[in-house]
Amino acid sequence: MMNLNEHGGNVHKVAELYGKQVEEIIDFSSNINPLGISSILKKMLIESIEHLEYYPDPEYRKLRNQIAEYAGVCAKNIIPCNGALEGIYVLLKTLKPSNIIIPAPCFSEYEKAARNAGIVVNFLKLDEQDGFKLNTKLLIREMQNGAKCVLLCNPNNPTSTIISVEEIEEILKVAIKNEITVIVDEAFIELTDKGAKNSVACMVNKYQNLYIIRAFTKIFAVPGIRLGYVVGNSSIIESMMLNVPCWSVNSFAVAAGGFLSNTCEYLSQTKSWLMSEKPRFYNRLMKISKIKVFKPNTNFILIKLLTRDLRADTLKNNMVKKGILIRDASNFKFLNEKFIRIAIKDSYNNDILIEALKKEIT
Amino acid sequence: MMNLNEHGGNVHKVAELYGKQVEEIIDFSSNINPLGISSILKKMLIESIEHLEYYPDPEYRKLRNQIAEYAGVCAKNIIPCNGALEGIYVLLKTLKPSNIIIPAPCFSEYEKAARNAGIVVNFLKLDEQDGFKLNTKLLIREMQNGAKCVLLCNPNNPTSTIISVEEIEEILKVAIKNEITVIVDEAFIELTDKGAKNSVACMVNKYQNLYIIRAFTKIFAVPGIRLGYVVGNSSIIESMMLNVPCWSVNSFAVAAGGFLSNTCEYLSQTKSWLMSEKPRFYNRLMKISKIKVFKPNTNFILIKLLTRDLRADTLKNNMVKKGILIRDASNFKFLNEKFIRIAIKDSYNNDILIEALKKEIT
Repeated sequence: MMNLNEHGGNVHKVAELYGKQVEEIIDFSSNINPLGISSILKKMLIESIEHLEYYPDPEYRKLRNQIAEYAGVCAKNIIPCNGALEGIYVLLKTLKPSNIIIPAPCFSEYEKAARNAGIVVNFLKLDEQDGFKLNTKLLIREMQNGAKCVLLCNPNNPTSTIISVEEIEEILKVAIKNEITVIVDEAFIELTDKGAKNSVACMVNKYQNLYIIRAFTKIFAVPGIRLGYVVGNSSIIESMMLNVPCWSVNSFAVAAGGFLSNTCEYLSQTKSWLMSEKPRFYNRLMKISKIKVFKPNTNFILIKLLTRDLRADTLKNNMVKKGILIRDASNFKFLNEKFIRIAIKDSYNNDILIEALKKEIT
Repeated sequence: MMNLNEHGGNVHKVAELYGKQVEEIIDFSSNINPLGISSILKKMLIESIEHLEYYPDPEYRKLRNQIAEYAGVCAKNIIPCNGALEGIYVLLKTLKPSNIIIPAPCFSEYEKAARNAGIVVNFLKLDEQDGFKLNTKLLIREMQNGAKCVLLCNPNNPTSTIISVEEIEEILKVAIKNEITVIVDEAFIELTDKGAKNSVACMVNKYQNLYIIRAFTKIFAVPGIRLGYVVGNSSIIESMMLNVPCWSVNSFAVAAGGFLSNTCEYLSQTKSWLMSEKPRFYNRLMKISKIKVFKPNTNFILIKLLTRDLRADTLKNNMVKKGILIRDASNFKFLNEKFIRIAIKDSYNNDILIEALKKEIT
């Protein structure tokens, strides 16, 4: 219908195009926790149907407390949003810096949200030779060139690289001196080896120029529920409340907040899977010739096709015919038609992908 | 926590303040269909939980078709939104007229959305002597004074007045000559005596300057689900898609679209209730002394307190103690501390309100 940015996870369109049912497709294109939705959370959602006849609490007091406890901050530092994306849009609209540095390749919606808020976007190109790892020194140098805001995705989509807490604090120190706002999108943070220990959410009171974006989507496998949140200093959080349409968070998302005090087992199972399957899958992929596999720091892997002729879109089409959906990563800034991104799923499905990929590439 | 506009339906806050359970309060403050959520729709929502692990289709192709069929327009004329409010925000941001005429008293979020988009707001005061009915001639005169946009709420919240299709067409003709956009919020349109026949949605292809806002909230009693839509010319609808964060409509809302082909019985029951209970409740209210009851054209009633001392906020507090929540309407533009608004519920609950109101007022 229109020129929307193509994201991963659009199984509906792919299913329609290829005459398949959504359920027939193994989706490696969206980076969702393969444990799937928790039965505890499902039960909460079913129960919440009885409350649909009420408007959500427009101040989300209960939900904010639940998120605050989970994220280790105060409720006044939290605004729940209709997905992390609404959080990014409203945060940028509220802060309205004149310009923003965005290391890239990165999630394409950052640029869209910044332009929507009338902000000049300056991309900092991540170096493929360094495995796309952020060069903190280079960033700090760029920041001192009149920058007003920096948006870091940590771990970064689509490169699966990570920035350490120490590096972020180094960036924050320079930023605060130069009156630069730092936004960190931690949508995948619980899906890193050290989990929430890699988060800088707890620093929002130490650094008043720091904002964190988090979401339920990836870690709790609920992209359909639309629940994200922004962590930051309370005065900007209050201003954001005034920039967001009333009741933008739906009642199911509100109910999902109740799951946050019950996540212990789910997070522990997630960690077990990640610690075993990430290295196993990576090592198996490394054995496939004619591809370059970038080392993953979270639940997805960036891959470069080294064959002369094979393009990402062709590979994607060929794989879909086998019922496997991968992410053609060629539309990410600074990437090209040689890049694909795949989610890490359970070993059974990962092995299906390995075998299919081998056949397509060799 | 902050100075949000106070709306009706905030039973959570009231329950907390008065140490009650939400279920203990009869809510006359939000204007929701008292039939409650349909069992067919409930079933669809429960089934949709299995699809939460997928992102919603970012183009909402199925949902747009379902809404289009229900509203009697083409899918290209529809954009689904995270509640009608997101629709209003994004529409105003996309059209960005330099000024807007809003007849008032009206829903307070219009002003907030317009100011959010940087639009100068000119209120047209509705005359209490005319029962707050829109004076079309006066509006048309004002429109020819450099107006760029008009936003009509039909039927109007909180006055429960209606503008006929013929009057709107008269306004549209002047508007198109003067290059003025006309937005009609029809959030309550199915809850009028003639139902969707009072809608001008079918005129969007005849009048390229016409936009309609509709929602599931009131008619299907699902404020928690967050599903609204805008009907309008396809090129602006496309532009709106680019101004809205991806996946802003959640999977439950998407699933609710399936209900639209099953609404026949629900709408017919709604009509039966409205045709019998609206006049009965109105007539009973009219018999209470010291109040002025404005004739309702939809499922809520505006009332003015004629006693010298009683204020809307006092009355509200006294009623809450009896487990009845009414809408203190004093914060609506051009209204004052003498106005309350009450939803029309089933006869059993309406009679409870009547008895309580009598005791408080006399």
